[in-house]
Amino acid sequence: MNIPHSKYPRVVIIGGGFAGIALAKKLRNKKVQVVLIDKHNYHTFQPLLYQVATGGLEAGSIAYPLRKVIQEHTDFYFRLTSVKEIDTENQKIISEIGDLHYDYLVIATGSKTNFFGNKEIERNAMSMKTIPQSLNIRSLILENFEQAVLTNDQAEKDALMNFVLVGAGPTGVELAGALAEMKKAILQKDYPDLDISKMEINLIQSGDLILNTMSEKSSIAAEKFLNKLGVKIWKNVRVTNYDGRTVTTNSDLTFETATVIWTAGVQGAAIPGLSSDALVERVERIKVNEFNQVNGYENIFAIGDIASMETNDFPKGHPMMAQPAIQQGKLLGENIIKLINHKPMKPFEYNDKGSMATIGRNLAVVDLPNFHFNGVFAWFVWMIVHLLSLIGFKNKAVVFLNWLYNYIRFDREGRLIIRPYKKKSFITFTSDEV
Amino acid sequence: MNIPHSKYPRVVIIGGGFAGIALAKKLRNKKVQVVLIDKHNYHTFQPLLYQVATGGLEAGSIAYPLRKVIQEHTDFYFRLTSVKEIDTENQKIISEIGDLHYDYLVIATGSKTNFFGNKEIERNAMSMKTIPQSLNIRSLILENFEQAVLTNDQAEKDALMNFVLVGAGPTGVELAGALAEMKKAILQKDYPDLDISKMEINLIQSGDLILNTMSEKSSIAAEKFLNKLGVKIWKNVRVTNYDGRTVTTNSDLTFETATVIWTAGVQGAAIPGLSSDALVERVERIKVNEFNQVNGYENIFAIGDIASMETNDFPKGHPMMAQPAIQQGKLLGENIIKLINHKPMKPFEYNDKGSMATIGRNLAVVDLPNFHFNGVFAWFVWMIVHLLSLIGFKNKAVVFLNWLYNYIRFDREGRLIIRPYKKKSFITFTSDEV
Repeated sequence: MNIPHSKYPRVVIIGGGFAGIALAKKLRNKKVQVVLIDKHNYHTFQPLLYQVATGGLEAGSIAYPLRKVIQEHTDFYFRLTSVKEIDTENQKIISEIGDLHYDYLVIATGSKTNFFGNKEIERNAMSMKTIPQSLNIRSLILENFEQAVLTNDQAEKDALMNFVLVGAGPTGVELAGALAEMKKAILQKDYPDLDISKMEINLIQSGDLILNTMSEKSSIAAEKFLNKLGVKIWKNVRVTNYDGRTVTTNSDLTFETATVIWTAGVQGAAIPGLSSDALVERVERIKVNEFNQVNGYENIFAIGDIASMETNDFPKGHPMMAQPAIQQGKLLGENIIKLINHKPMKPFEYNDKGSMATIGRNLAVVDLPNFHFNGVFAWFVWMIVHLLSLIGFKNKAVVFLNWLYNYIRFDREGRLIIRPYKKKSFITFTSDEV
Repeated sequence: MNIPHSKYPRVVIIGGGFAGIALAKKLRNKKVQVVLIDKHNYHTFQPLLYQVATGGLEAGSIAYPLRKVIQEHTDFYFRLTSVKEIDTENQKIISEIGDLHYDYLVIATGSKTNFFGNKEIERNAMSMKTIPQSLNIRSLILENFEQAVLTNDQAEKDALMNFVLVGAGPTGVELAGALAEMKKAILQKDYPDLDISKMEINLIQSGDLILNTMSEKSSIAAEKFLNKLGVKIWKNVRVTNYDGRTVTTNSDLTFETATVIWTAGVQGAAIPGLSSDALVERVERIKVNEFNQVNGYENIFAIGDIASMETNDFPKGHPMMAQPAIQQGKLLGENIIKLINHKPMKPFEYNDKGSMATIGRNLAVVDLPNFHFNGVFAWFVWMIVHLLSLIGFKNKAVVFLNWLYNYIRFDREGRLIIRPYKKKSFITFTSDEV
C-alpha cells in the first residue's frame, strides 16, 4: 500500500463512516501514524440516503471527501480499497491493493443489508445502505413510471406503480413517507397520462409495531402520519420471497410489484480473519469489551455498527445508528493514546441523546430520553439536528437550500435518471401507429 | 409508444437539449399534439459539464427534469428512449420502445464527440458531451491520484498525473483551467504523499490558435491565462493515436499518460433514415433551409447542433453552441404553427450575442459582436450569464452557492468517486510490510 515508515506506532482504521471519522479526528497529530481505509473516497451521511433515493437531494450533498477530513493531519494516510482479510497472526490486513502491517487495528466497517439468507430476495430486491444503491433506487422508481406509460396492460401498470417496502424501521418509514410525498406533489403532474391514484406504497413489518426501536408513542404517531399520507401498513406480516414480480408472505397476502426495497434487517459488514469467539452469529457483529477491544485481541478494536458491546442496558449491543458510533470513535481516540502510553483506558458509556424519524412535510416523531413529541415542531427539530450533523459548511448550506425550495415549491428536482438501473424491461412494449 | 390519438397534428421532437426545449416551450397549448423524446429524462446544461467533471458542481445542479419542463402543457407527452431510425416513407420513427407516427418531425439530437474514425482513440480516450461521461472523467481523475500514491515507479506516477486534453476549443480550454485550479488548490492538500508539482496539464491544438472560434484577442488572452495557471499548450500538433498509455502525434512529440480527454471535434448525432442528399458528410449534420426544413422534406425539420444551415455569414452552418439552437427552436415553434395554418414561414436570422470562455478564478474572455474584454470583469459577466441561463430557480441558487463557496474557500467538494470508472488498473501494486 506504499505507506512510509514512521517512528510512531501505526493505527489502521477500516471504514470512514461516523465511527471511523470521529476516531480519525481524535487522532490528529497525536504521535501515531494513521492509515484510514475505505472502499469509497467519501464519507456518507446515511440518515439522508432516503432523500437521495427519492430525488430530494443530490448525492454530493450528503457525501464528504474523506481526504478533506484528514487534509491537515500529519503522518495520516488515506487508501481507497476493500479489505479482504485480517491476518491477526502477522498483524496485517490483506487488501485489493496489497497488504499492510498494523500496530493497532480498528474495524469500523459499519453494517450492510441482511437478507437472512434468502438469495432470491437479495437478487431481486433493492438495498439502501450506500449512495450508489440509493441512486439505483431513484433510477428504478423513475424508470418504473417511464415504463408504466408504455403499457395498457393494467396488471403491468399496477405492478410498476406498486412499491413494497419491507421493514418499518426509521429507513422504511422515512422512505415510505418520501414516496407518498412524491406521489402527491410530483408524479401526478409529471405523468398526466397515468392514473397516479393507483400508485401504492406498501410498508410491511414483521412485528406489531412500526419504528419498534422508538417509543410506543412515536410508533403510534408515525403510523397515524403514514396513514394520512396514504401509505398502507401491514403489520405482523413476514415476507417469505420475491421473485422479481410477486412478493409472497407467511400469510395468504401477496403483492404484485416491480419494486421491493428491503430495509428489514442489517448485519455487521464483517471481514474474515477474526477468531469465531469474536463474532456474534447471525448478525455478524464483532464482540467487544467496554473499551471496544475485540474479544481475544489486545490491539484490535471495533467501533460503530459492527461492534457489539453487551451491557446491562443493551444486552444485544448498542443500536446500530450514528450516535453510538460517533461516541465510540471519539472515546477510542483517547483510549488508543492511553494504551500506547500505558495508561488505563476509560470504559465506554453511551449517552443516549434520543432518536427521531421524519415521515413527511411537517410530520416527524422525536424521542428524547424522557420525553416524546411529534408533529410540526418535531419536524423542525429533525431538520435542524440533521443539518447541523452534516459534515461541511457547503453541504449544510446546499441541503438547507434544497429543503427550503422543496418545501415552498412542493418539489424534488432530483428526479433524474443519471445512470439507469439496468434491469430487464418489466413490460412488453406495444408498437402503435396512431 | 402508447400515445393517444389527438384531433391535432402530431409534432415529434427528438432531443431535449437547448433547441428541443426552446421549441417545446413555444408549442405549449398551441393546437398541436407534441411528443418529446430523449434518451435521458433530463435536460443537460452542457456549458457547465466541465465543472461536473472537475468536482466543482454536482450533476443535479446542471440537469433539469424534462417532464417538469412540460408539466403544464396539455396534449404533450414525454418518452424516454433512443430513436433508432426514421422511416420517412411511412412517416414514423422507430425506437427501442416501439414506433410512432409523426405529422411533423423535428430532429434536435445535438452533437457527439467526433474521433474522425480513429477507433483506438475512441476506445481509450474520454469524451465529455453528457453528464455520465463527465462523471466518468471525474472518477478517472481521482482514481488516477489514488493509484499514483500506490506506486514508486516514477514513470507510472508521472503518467497517472499527466492529463492530455486534445482540442483547445472552449471545452478543452475551460477543462484545462479547471484542472489547473484543482492542482493548485486541492490536490496538493489532498495528496501530501505525492509531489503534485509533477502533475502536468497538456493542451493540444492542431491549429496555431487556441479558442479559434473566438477573436484573436480572446485567443491570446486565454493563452496567457492558461500559461499563468501552468497549463502547457502545444499548437500545430495533431494527435495521431492513443493506445491507453502513449499519445503519438504528427511530430516526434509523444506523451505518456493514463488520461486523454478528447474535445477535438464534434459531429452531428445523426439518426439513420434520411436521404443522403440531406446529410453533410464527415460532420454528420443535416442540411436545412432557412426555415430549418430538412433538404427534400416538407415536414421534417432539424434544429440546433445537428442542423447545418448554410448562409453567407456561415457557409458551413452556424456554430454548434447554445445560442443558435435556442433561437432556431423558438422560431421553429412559430413556423410550425404557421405551416399548419398555411401561412408563410419566417426565415431564420442568427442574432449573434457573442461568445465567452472562462479559464479560471477571475480569468475569462468575452467577445461581444464588436467588442472584446477579458479578466476579472469578463469572469463576472461569464458567471452571471451562465447563472441566468440555467433552467430553474433551484439550480441557479445551488450553483451560485457552490461557486461562492468554491471561490471563498478555494475548494471543490465534489471530488467524489460515486461510480468508479471501470478501467483496468494502470499500475502494478506492490505489497509492503513496513
